[in-house]
Amino acid sequence: MTYDINAIRADFPILSRTVNGKPLVYLDNGASAQKPQVVIDAITKGYAEEYANVHRGLHYLSNLATDKYEGVRGKLATFLNAGSEDEIIFNSGTTEGINMVAYSWAMPRLEAGDEIVLSIMEHHANIVPWHFLRERQGVVIKWVDVDANGDLDPQAVIDAIGPKTKLVAVTHMSNVLGTLVDVKAICAGARAKGVPVLVDGSQAAVHLPVDVQDIGCDFYAITGHKLYGPSGSGGIYVTKERMAEMRPFLGGGDMIKDVRRDGIDYNDAPMKFEAGTPGIVQTIGLGVALDYMMDVGMDNIAAHEHALRDYTNAKLGGLNWLQVQGNSATKGAIFSFTLDGAAHAHDISTVLDKKGVAVRAGSHCAMPLMDHLGVTATCRASMGMYNTTGDVDALVDALELCHDLFA
Amino acid sequence: MTYDINAIRADFPILSRTVNGKPLVYLDNGASAQKPQVVIDAITKGYAEEYANVHRGLHYLSNLATDKYEGVRGKLATFLNAGSEDEIIFNSGTTEGINMVAYSWAMPRLEAGDEIVLSIMEHHANIVPWHFLRERQGVVIKWVDVDANGDLDPQAVIDAIGPKTKLVAVTHMSNVLGTLVDVKAICAGARAKGVPVLVDGSQAAVHLPVDVQDIGCDFYAITGHKLYGPSGSGGIYVTKERMAEMRPFLGGGDMIKDVRRDGIDYNDAPMKFEAGTPGIVQTIGLGVALDYMMDVGMDNIAAHEHALRDYTNAKLGGLNWLQVQGNSATKGAIFSFTLDGAAHAHDISTVLDKKGVAVRAGSHCAMPLMDHLGVTATCRASMGMYNTTGDVDALVDALELCHDLFA
Repeated sequence: MTYDINAIRADFPILSRTVNGKPLVYLDNGASAQKPQVVIDAITKGYAEEYANVHRGLHYLSNLATDKYEGVRGKLATFLNAGSEDEIIFNSGTTEGINMVAYSWAMPRLEAGDEIVLSIMEHHANIVPWHFLRERQGVVIKWVDVDANGDLDPQAVIDAIGPKTKLVAVTHMSNVLGTLVDVKAICAGARAKGVPVLVDGSQAAVHLPVDVQDIGCDFYAITGHKLYGPSGSGGIYVTKERMAEMRPFLGGGDMIKDVRRDGIDYNDAPMKFEAGTPGIVQTIGLGVALDYMMDVGMDNIAAHEHALRDYTNAKLGGLNWLQVQGNSATKGAIFSFTLDGAAHAHDISTVLDKKGVAVRAGSHCAMPLMDHLGVTATCRASMGMYNTTGDVDALVDALELCHDLFA
Repeated sequence: MTYDINAIRADFPILSRTVNGKPLVYLDNGASAQKPQVVIDAITKGYAEEYANVHRGLHYLSNLATDKYEGVRGKLATFLNAGSEDEIIFNSGTTEGINMVAYSWAMPRLEAGDEIVLSIMEHHANIVPWHFLRERQGVVIKWVDVDANGDLDPQAVIDAIGPKTKLVAVTHMSNVLGTLVDVKAICAGARAKGVPVLVDGSQAAVHLPVDVQDIGCDFYAITGHKLYGPSGSGGIYVTKERMAEMRPFLGGGDMIKDVRRDGIDYNDAPMKFEAGTPGIVQTIGLGVALDYMMDVGMDNIAAHEHALRDYTNAKLGGLNWLQVQGNSATKGAIFSFTLDGAAHAHDISTVLDKKGVAVRAGSHCAMPLMDHLGVTATCRASMGMYNTTGDVDALVDALELCHDLFA
């Protein structure tokens, strides 16, 4: 299949708008992705024609909404190549997913002195829940640094696993550097030592095919709003073995079989971990977004973005007043950079915005990495399936304007 | 103002559809409410024209989305008459809100033998989180029964508060019986004993004006999808005093000021309790739903539904083969019932569905109440701002058919 970038762009209505009088050049996909019309239409239809609460009704609309909602479990299982849709727990995104693992699996199992191994590249969503366990029950966080290219040596992670290590939690792709982590090697090494691995797939699942069985991880968290789906949608893959070890996280409707004055019988997994009225319509929208990505083809998306990455590398490499952070050979199309001179990342993003170029500036919810890199903030241009070399050219033009202004 | 029921109905597109060849008679509002076109339009616009992640961006779309999203905090504060929008924590609904109170406030404070007072009318969302504390740390749940009318005597709740009681958690309106609870009296009595009160406002906030300052509660939880807003939206009112006592619940982006290898500085409340990318567009949609309700007027909605309740009471009272559960003078327009004869609640709802009448059948996530009432399941017709006496007539016609079929 040829990658029809114009057809894809036409599917995303927001891409035809202007910002500050300029065509929108949306390069903030690492923070959140835009939505294709099919997703927006599914949401509209969900509310205007087919809405009711799920699971607990027997009337037509409730059955219809339940069928559509539950149908997404299989789609997400297919998207991640999980062995069974019973290994998918719906949630509001990666933050809730990782917190669930911290509260449901780790909290009752880890004791003072037990260790969790993290890479220095982790997003705060994969740091703060573990700091809670440090603060509250004396768990020790062990950090593994990246090298000068921004690469994470899988063996360094495996070597950090000691007799007190109970979990490795590592990103599949850095949201700052774009580094792709060899999580398969980490999982193999950790498994040999009997230690489970949680993979934060927030970024990676957007950009390349994911196969959780091939990776061999115990937990794989994704977030719907980065996958061209609605805000507040998401899920986490958990192996049946780990799920059997988890106690419930949120309590409420749907996750119980029986509630008495003096006791509870919990529902079977994965429902045991899904309490209350879920994000019905946004989950249905996520299913449509996954279908959209799989129809285009994750291999095709990956190839398109690799070409964009190479083009951007060449372009930015020609700007000797610009410092790109991270130069891994595995890098995805995510570029964090600083400029020579006094320009603060926030000033750069403000100038770029005047040219219609949307990038993010700040610490990107990765302060330990920022500290490791010796910077307080960067600008980040992060690409998605609909970005073009023209978008990169617009970025470079705007950066040159910054250089002229601030040099 | 006259209550223009036809204009209101015209605002909800789904109400003009048919189900099983009959006009939809939607009486499942206790489970979830339908959405007016303005809410659907806000969602569409949010995704098609104005979408980006909030808080952490400096570009135009991110600022626009942030302004719209944060603007809802003040709307919800106004809706509940909170003293400050800083007392509003956004979440995905009541289940998450009550679980947050259980994990953030109660869990680190309550010890084995400490008591939580609940009414027997509570929804599982206001039971299971407290059972967690019973299972995990030996907290004792004390139950207060309702009388034969389904009324909860506030003094009985206050009398249940002993020296070991650390929290009272009570619904404002039963989702099964429709009983309105005098939470103001309960809060006054509990305050005199130094015990905080959590009010589950999932049902009440839909049907009548709520004034959390007048009630005097410490926590008031609402859920957006019942308030004619999107699924996955919601919030909880927490007084500043209680908020200062809470530790963080979910960890991730936005709720921190600084993250280091060896420590964290948390953000100021309420952001301290909002981790990760929130339900951006559904929260914006919730704001539009709140505006819609406040434009119609909560007093007007309450008056309309009171008239509907009286009409329904009279109609159902004429069916001597039908038993309505709960007959409080304070009752809202929520009717749970069983039929003489062999008909199971599920069979009744199936017959009603054939006539286009959507009701719920089951335990309504209130098993302890079902047990107290001596039933395993009921049918429930629950009304909203758009229901009519014609809807009630259609319900009664369909019930008479049931009676003919099953008698």
